[in-house]
Amino acid sequence: MQLEGLGDSALTMTINFGMSVGAFFLCLNIIPKFKDSFISANLFGVDLNKLIKKKVPEALGVVCGAVFLCTMFIFMPVPFYKQLAANTPGKFPHHEYIHYLAALLSICCMVFLGFADDVLNLKWRHKLLLPTLASLPLLTVYFTNVNATNIILPVQLRDLMGMDLRLGPIYYIYMGMLAVFCTNAINIYAGVNGLEVGQSCVIALSVLVFNFLEVQGEHRLGHVFSIYFMMPFFAVSAALLYHNWYPSRVFVGDTYCYFAGMTFAVVAILSHFSKTMLLFFIPQVFNFIFSVPQLFHFVPCPRHRLPKLNPHSGKLDMSYTMFKSGSLGTVGQFCIQLFDFFKLISVTHNVGDSGMYTQVNNLTLINLTLKVFGPLHEKKLVTILLVLQVICSIVAFMIRYQLKKIFYDS
Amino acid sequence: MQLEGLGDSALTMTINFGMSVGAFFLCLNIIPKFKDSFISANLFGVDLNKLIKKKVPEALGVVCGAVFLCTMFIFMPVPFYKQLAANTPGKFPHHEYIHYLAALLSICCMVFLGFADDVLNLKWRHKLLLPTLASLPLLTVYFTNVNATNIILPVQLRDLMGMDLRLGPIYYIYMGMLAVFCTNAINIYAGVNGLEVGQSCVIALSVLVFNFLEVQGEHRLGHVFSIYFMMPFFAVSAALLYHNWYPSRVFVGDTYCYFAGMTFAVVAILSHFSKTMLLFFIPQVFNFIFSVPQLFHFVPCPRHRLPKLNPHSGKLDMSYTMFKSGSLGTVGQFCIQLFDFFKLISVTHNVGDSGMYTQVNNLTLINLTLKVFGPLHEKKLVTILLVLQVICSIVAFMIRYQLKKIFYDS
Repeated sequence: MQLEGLGDSALTMTINFGMSVGAFFLCLNIIPKFKDSFISANLFGVDLNKLIKKKVPEALGVVCGAVFLCTMFIFMPVPFYKQLAANTPGKFPHHEYIHYLAALLSICCMVFLGFADDVLNLKWRHKLLLPTLASLPLLTVYFTNVNATNIILPVQLRDLMGMDLRLGPIYYIYMGMLAVFCTNAINIYAGVNGLEVGQSCVIALSVLVFNFLEVQGEHRLGHVFSIYFMMPFFAVSAALLYHNWYPSRVFVGDTYCYFAGMTFAVVAILSHFSKTMLLFFIPQVFNFIFSVPQLFHFVPCPRHRLPKLNPHSGKLDMSYTMFKSGSLGTVGQFCIQLFDFFKLISVTHNVGDSGMYTQVNNLTLINLTLKVFGPLHEKKLVTILLVLQVICSIVAFMIRYQLKKIFYDS
Repeated sequence: MQLEGLGDSALTMTINFGMSVGAFFLCLNIIPKFKDSFISANLFGVDLNKLIKKKVPEALGVVCGAVFLCTMFIFMPVPFYKQLAANTPGKFPHHEYIHYLAALLSICCMVFLGFADDVLNLKWRHKLLLPTLASLPLLTVYFTNVNATNIILPVQLRDLMGMDLRLGPIYYIYMGMLAVFCTNAINIYAGVNGLEVGQSCVIALSVLVFNFLEVQGEHRLGHVFSIYFMMPFFAVSAALLYHNWYPSRVFVGDTYCYFAGMTFAVVAILSHFSKTMLLFFIPQVFNFIFSVPQLFHFVPCPRHRLPKLNPHSGKLDMSYTMFKSGSLGTVGQFCIQLFDFFKLISVTHNVGDSGMYTQVNNLTLINLTLKVFGPLHEKKLVTILLVLQVICSIVAFMIRYQLKKIFYDS
């Protein structure tokens, strides 16, 4: 990424930090105030895992998204204050400023799409088409400014295939898919209070740590750019987490998942660290792959896959899907056998009225955690899942910095 | 506006036209399909001026906005196809491309804000704050690329004040307010089927005529830029008008008004013809000024100011506001007397139970039209109002091209 002459980036980072703190308190303060208008707009859900069923306002992620966008609108001129003050015609670094506009355009589109989805319950084709289109401006900017589509090959492969591999158009398809993946990966790894925002906070913190580790290095300005986005993002997310933590007073909605996913995708693409970003998504990638048989309906997928409250113990149990024994297709059958072999699922045969049904727990990381630890209280479950996210981030850093030495002698 | 090297703009305009036709048919086709999901999302209104009260889906402008944004995302690389194909490092005209991104970012923000307003019924402070912030990126781009804040003075003033007046920061405040004005001016000039979209279509066509008249002139590339935005905008609006025309099968919502207003503001600012744009807003400006006493509550303002259906005649009558005689403040009193003097309103004294009340028709251009023409059928009323809009556009062209000669000897 070619961002030159950002001025004194330590100072601008401090300003960004200050504005993030402001955004945090603003969000913390206004989220509860919006509760009633969300409920009267029919934007609410009922927490399935609580004994007392009451209306919880949904889609409050939109408030975070709006505060984030406003913060960035105000912040945007700051890194360019010197050039703006000088105002020499033809000297303004448009090729740098354009990154901010493209990034915010994509994020704004996704916040809008997410909110529209929460309100209107969009169809799958809209959910795939619109993010792809929304990432077009981003890819154009990448094409004109960076256009690095080569991946450095591991030492072991260099004799065969050379130093690096130029992927060309494939790399752009990969980046377009990254945006769609990030948004949906967070969206499907959900179901217990605080998990969507919690995981996003951990990922954002991991990215920030990574950026600060690298900010003195070769790609300094890309990492500075990422920091500018990640600090306010973390701030608004932390404020939302406060209200969304067990027991949730607000739900975050698809809006938040889309917002978070696109923000991660944008900084990964424009700051050119998409592989490292994917390392921070290990639990999400695992959950996605684990879910594939149900997402593509090789195995029946009920409307909700979240764990189930046991009203007697007050703890959460796994949730199950049931199907007629032998009714699965070849692919579904194979997946169930494979997952069963690795002890990832618990399969019960001969259930139901006539014993003709097979019962399998829903294929999510949340249910797998419950299989490993046994029934858990919701607060404990989400804590374990977030600790897992942190552990995966540590693993990610080890892969990024240790394993790299084996494959890439730098 | 400095847009150089756009390539063959006749070809790109043809492509833009083709995509606009596509957007028109797409909108025409999908708007009815979204009706049910809008109604089940509680996004509906009841047409107050129909005898049969049924649910009409509201805020369908969001579909137009989304189609417009998608069209522009796909179109954006087209004007730059030569530079993209050449892909010489450092040669891409970022200072041109940035206009598209800034424009779409502002429009996307407003579509999002409008939709949020339709869903959540935002407060006035949000409705003023967010558009202002959303126009910040636009103003930064204007500052770095154009930064023309001088207005050429009429010949008659030049002896006193010189050739031109440099407004500096005031010009930026003016542009920021232009965005807020355009969005709200369309929003308050509403109340009969088809008026919001109809007026926007007339304005868009007027802008297109103006652009095509000027496209060979000095500021050629600014007008080409405007055409690129106005053609798809007109296309999606025309499709919406088809469904919103009397009797409305869908309502357009604040979303559409915000979307339309911001699109006009964006092209006016970036293509540097904000004064001409305001000339196309004559009915809206008049309606706004006429409404001021009610908007600022100098005169009591009922929740709805739209005309009232007379169930016997099937025609629309003026709607009224009532207040205790002598209860108005000085300003309100003065406005009523002023408007009464110019026969713009009909005032009835000594009404109500004890004859202590005064009745005045609501201060809108729609009611004024009904005062002039007498009760009208809704379809006829909206037709007259749109014809008025066309006449005002013709007047605007006369002012722009004829009156200009008196004040500006070019």
